Amino acid sequence: MITLYDMERSGNCYKARLLFGLLGVEYKKHTVDLSKKEQMEPWFLAINPLHHVPVLDDAGTIIRDSNAVLVYLAAKYDAARTWYPASPAGMAEVQQWLAYANNEILNTLAAVRAIGLGLRPGNLAEAQEKASGVLSVLEASLTGRNWLVTSHSTIADVACYPYASLVSMGGMTHDAYPAITAWFKRIEALKGYVPLPARPVAKA
Amino acid sequence: MITLYDMERSGNCYKARLLFGLLGVEYKKHTVDLSKKEQMEPWFLAINPLHHVPVLDDAGTIIRDSNAVLVYLAAKYDAARTWYPASPAGMAEVQQWLAYANNEILNTLAAVRAIGLGLRPGNLAEAQEKASGVLSVLEASLTGRNWLVTSHSTIADVACYPYASLVSMGGMTHDAYPAITAWFKRIEALKGYVPLPARPVAKA
Repeated sequence: MITLYDMERSGNCYKARLLFGLLGVEYKKHTVDLSKKEQMEPWFLAINPLHHVPVLDDAGTIIRDSNAVLVYLAAKYDAARTWYPASPAGMAEVQQWLAYANNEILNTLAAVRAIGLGLRPGNLAEAQEKASGVLSVLEASLTGRNWLVTSHSTIADVACYPYASLVSMGGMTHDAYPAITAWFKRIEALKGYVPLPARPVAKA
Repeated sequence: MITLYDMERSGNCYKARLLFGLLGVEYKKHTVDLSKKEQMEPWFLAINPLHHVPVLDDAGTIIRDSNAVLVYLAAKYDAARTWYPASPAGMAEVQQWLAYANNEILNTLAAVRAIGLGLRPGNLAEAQEKASGVLSVLEASLTGRNWLVTSHSTIADVACYPYASLVSMGGMTHDAYPAITAWFKRIEALKGYVPLPARPVAKA
């Protein structure tokens, strides 16, 4: 059985859960309680010295980092290599978007959500302005096409989708981004789609 | 012919130049003069709207982002898939280090060099302290093994090597990191190795 070391609220963990759903692969969730600093406990550091979730344990093969988990699952459980195209140009084009997801998107779109939800300090208006620039690049890249890479969905879409959508929790709308909005709908209509992490319930 | 849009001083561009050397693949360099903001000119934005180097043009296939360039070159020009292993676990393990190179290493080790050389503002002592933590992870990962992934060199080593070495331009030594130092020597002994960017000559 495959175990995903997971945190419900994390957009990076969600990427793995989404791909499990899309591939129709069964797995077991092991929630890591970051509020109790479980990620710093010796048992967790032994599987990921970088103390981040998600981590995958597939019968002893341990994979850390959300992009690496996507590459692993797509290469291992999609024999047709639809989700991670096998051609050099296909792999490299996906890689461009994995980098965009881990840098530009994580540093701006994920920040808008985290600041908006009060999960971290920061200037929301400033974060939103940077986020607009990143959304504009996505919008331009999706204009006139259905998916980020090739003519079908790939792990590039899985990697970029969550935080692009979740900026709504940081007070942004997608009204100015029709191509992104249409892309969201296409992703959300895929067989096996898994809902995004819910907005946390405000504490009384 | 393959064209690399390049900047001599950039560690990210160097990764591409190094892999070209290691693979023995010929290419043409097109230097992008960032001091003249050439990366913002329409001709460059047309090939990379993110206005970063490196960018590759292989007979019309355009690849931006240093990690994507490494994946592309290794998948296309190394039929044996030694440099980017073809197994799901091999690809994912390489991917972990590509992420480390683009996040932890770029944000700390590259920062030490840039601040040390006066290329950007910042607190050098603080940057060096963060860099020590990142070097310690690399040191632990290389202790008892020759390469970051599998038993031979891969693009994981190519991605992590440059800025790990270049911290010397930011006043750090590698004295506390014997496994890293031995790994440097192994990389520098590889057939086709290309020297690191030189220390810029101070302006009079």
